[in-house]
Amino acid sequence: MTRQDKSQHRMSVSRRGLLQAGAAFAAGAGALAVPTAATSAGVPESWDESYDVVVIGSGFAGLSAAYEARKAGASVALFEKMPSRGGNSVISGGFWSVAGTPLQEEQGIEDSPESLLEDMLAAGLDMNHVELARKVAFESLDALMWSIEEIGVEYRDNLVHLGGHSVARSYYTDAGDGSGLTRPLMERLRENGVEPRTRVALQHLLRDADGRVKGVAVREGVPFPDDGSGEIRHIKAGKAVVLAAGGFGNDVAFRMLQDPRLEDGFSSTNQPGSTAEALREALKIGCTPIQLSWIQLLPPLSPDERGFGLGFDFGVMTTVHGIWINTLTGERFVNEIADRKTRADAMLRVGDETIAIADADGAERIEAELMEQLLEREVVMRFDTLEELANAHDVPLDALEETISNWNAAVEAGEDAQWGRAMQRDQTSLDTPPWYAMRLTPKIHHTMGGVGINTEAQALDVSTGEVIPGLYCAGEITGGVHGAVRLGGCAYGDAIVFGRIAGRNAADEEEWS
Amino acid sequence: MTRQDKSQHRMSVSRRGLLQAGAAFAAGAGALAVPTAATSAGVPESWDESYDVVVIGSGFAGLSAAYEARKAGASVALFEKMPSRGGNSVISGGFWSVAGTPLQEEQGIEDSPESLLEDMLAAGLDMNHVELARKVAFESLDALMWSIEEIGVEYRDNLVHLGGHSVARSYYTDAGDGSGLTRPLMERLRENGVEPRTRVALQHLLRDADGRVKGVAVREGVPFPDDGSGEIRHIKAGKAVVLAAGGFGNDVAFRMLQDPRLEDGFSSTNQPGSTAEALREALKIGCTPIQLSWIQLLPPLSPDERGFGLGFDFGVMTTVHGIWINTLTGERFVNEIADRKTRADAMLRVGDETIAIADADGAERIEAELMEQLLEREVVMRFDTLEELANAHDVPLDALEETISNWNAAVEAGEDAQWGRAMQRDQTSLDTPPWYAMRLTPKIHHTMGGVGINTEAQALDVSTGEVIPGLYCAGEITGGVHGAVRLGGCAYGDAIVFGRIAGRNAADEEEWS
Repeated sequence: MTRQDKSQHRMSVSRRGLLQAGAAFAAGAGALAVPTAATSAGVPESWDESYDVVVIGSGFAGLSAAYEARKAGASVALFEKMPSRGGNSVISGGFWSVAGTPLQEEQGIEDSPESLLEDMLAAGLDMNHVELARKVAFESLDALMWSIEEIGVEYRDNLVHLGGHSVARSYYTDAGDGSGLTRPLMERLRENGVEPRTRVALQHLLRDADGRVKGVAVREGVPFPDDGSGEIRHIKAGKAVVLAAGGFGNDVAFRMLQDPRLEDGFSSTNQPGSTAEALREALKIGCTPIQLSWIQLLPPLSPDERGFGLGFDFGVMTTVHGIWINTLTGERFVNEIADRKTRADAMLRVGDETIAIADADGAERIEAELMEQLLEREVVMRFDTLEELANAHDVPLDALEETISNWNAAVEAGEDAQWGRAMQRDQTSLDTPPWYAMRLTPKIHHTMGGVGINTEAQALDVSTGEVIPGLYCAGEITGGVHGAVRLGGCAYGDAIVFGRIAGRNAADEEEWS
Repeated sequence: MTRQDKSQHRMSVSRRGLLQAGAAFAAGAGALAVPTAATSAGVPESWDESYDVVVIGSGFAGLSAAYEARKAGASVALFEKMPSRGGNSVISGGFWSVAGTPLQEEQGIEDSPESLLEDMLAAGLDMNHVELARKVAFESLDALMWSIEEIGVEYRDNLVHLGGHSVARSYYTDAGDGSGLTRPLMERLRENGVEPRTRVALQHLLRDADGRVKGVAVREGVPFPDDGSGEIRHIKAGKAVVLAAGGFGNDVAFRMLQDPRLEDGFSSTNQPGSTAEALREALKIGCTPIQLSWIQLLPPLSPDERGFGLGFDFGVMTTVHGIWINTLTGERFVNEIADRKTRADAMLRVGDETIAIADADGAERIEAELMEQLLEREVVMRFDTLEELANAHDVPLDALEETISNWNAAVEAGEDAQWGRAMQRDQTSLDTPPWYAMRLTPKIHHTMGGVGINTEAQALDVSTGEVIPGLYCAGEITGGVHGAVRLGGCAYGDAIVFGRIAGRNAADEEEWS
């Protein structure tokens, strides 16, 4: 086919699609001469490729959906716009917060999904869509066991207590980050004949005039950012499309529409592909926007390295085994183990003049190899005395000494009255040199808002509030699970629980032709 | 025409529209066989009525837009879905906050649009779209003078100091509410041959395949809530549609998508028609959702009457000449003149066990007639002694006496150290019986979010970020001006400044055929 032929072919395809659309309207047009659903009206006569289920995005949600759909017998295509697979998931921190786990039982920690749900709602400022949050809280245990038993994910045998959680309940991948999940997930997919295809960027969700999403238009072989090169292909989804394209933390234009403070240059933990093209497209075909203006800043990070960085582990360690200091006053400025929003807001109020401090006991809790790297890169600094630390970070020494002395008294008393911070069982006082300090800054981490779904991961139409046939969504591109503020380690449950539901339900759809 | 004829007529209309749409796609389909703009694809072959400019909504924004469009020579239709005109505007509080006014000059109050803008951004938690907020801050004076000189609106000669404003800058209509503006605006419109048509509900914005909004489908003679009765009419907008359909504070389903705490039964100051049908329709055709989850609760209202009620005046008075008390403790619980969100959040934390207290000096600042009504309806209660007040509202008397004594000392000192509240010039201490108390509750008041516009009031496409030709939006249906929290008296400037811009620009559009 010449280029002109192709163009003419597409024109006729387009017209034919519209005629079909017209007939569909007319059939249901007793009351109104206009359609009640938004359409992209570009469903072609013939498709370049055809699958039962088409998945967009190769993070946890997309991989889980593809796996479950394939397992249920569907033919599956999985598209990733970036040159590498895994989205934000692969570079995420590796924590998964689950209630009622084997590790908790081993360690005698009492917990329940109801308690996890309560923590999620408290952090979410009660803005959560409760039925969605409940699904994550109650089905994460099953998903975690699935990841161990069926996918082969390996976790460490110590639980982590992340900020905002009432007990230690976070599993931590052996790999130390999200690759501990994405790698085995991709292996299992490959064994089942599904290979995520990279550099394939969604252009349009093809929602037909009958209201059903019937496929996608993608551009193949495209660089990122999309420069309009590459070939357009129309991919049929005979059963359903699963949209799992992630958040928009690195989309400056779109995030500034929702939170104008987050201008260009504001640091982010996200990979460059965390942009809003797919979300915009979903909204264009009539998906319901939910809580788009809640964008999370992750507090315990270093301004002295890009993105997530290595400092996260040190920052998280200091939320339990250290303290955070306002260098202007030498005082603590927040409950170090409060939810992310509370801490990030407190840091923004102080104006980024904040550091995390630990002593030798704390530093020992970081893997030796990682600690070496942190010191080598000068993300964390080591000092023989508190005086040296104070000098280096321009902290008033007297005030700092008093703060540490008060802190140690609180550890002794088992209660931090000043900030209402819960003490851990293995809490030690701060008194063993050498001392360690890391500068702190909050970075854009997670976009809580997105498109509206129900508990079956079905997308909801903004016009009618009803399900959009043929479209499932899961993971960070959806909104409502986390309300105003996501708790640490709850993105994994969100993406994997709803990803699996989406995949199973998509495979279970009736074919539209 | 029989019913069947009509149905067939509509079918053919629909098909023809689609064929035209198809041709339009094909013309621009060099790269893609699918359209880049969302369409409702229902533009009919012939229209039931035709105007240059079609305005949806009869609040401040719609009336101002219609007036300016007509003045610029356009033919104008204005549709209102409710049986009565004026939307939320007609029942609003009557306050308009403007900087640099004649009344401020008379009273020696220094102020500037820059200072108003700063207050708007501080209240908005810096989430405001600054360029939109700036437009309101800087152009409200011109709009206020227009309302006086051209429309004939009458204001009282005392300025009001509303919460969150750094100086007294709010004009107050002679009528005591928003009817002081809607009435003369409707008279001027009528003189110019435009009569707002009630019970005409928007069904669809008709966005053609070329991306332009070309008219609307409305249902005429429809009750509210819309029961699907009434006649569908297609109204051509040869130049543009102005969408000024207001907020969604009374739309339980839509508001709960964005803030699930605001369930059915949560009180609201809004009229029943503050629902999201038009907003949903705007999103469906590709408008950009902005900050929909920011929904404002208005604090100084009474739970002992419905809606806005009469208590608002008393509540506002007590923010300067009284104090607010947590009846459980007898203590103040917030800076009474903080912004609305700060106060509403504090009230929700206390759990609605809050009252506003004033003495005889404060009560004298309320019009005698209104004060009588407040007492008669038992919205405000009068007590000869503080003890009686404490008994009636179950407040610990000792604590209450101490609170008032501390307050009087703060008035004397000219500084409220406890809550950082600024003292007013005419601040008096609380010591003159009889005492007055009103129970307080926050009610849903304003939806800050809505569709995205630029400073020319042009709607922005979610897919491309570009202007949607033929569509202007103004007033509460838009988002961004107020960020997270709207300051008191700033809705008037928002609606009227952007309503006028929308009307003028709509009239200035080139006709599409």
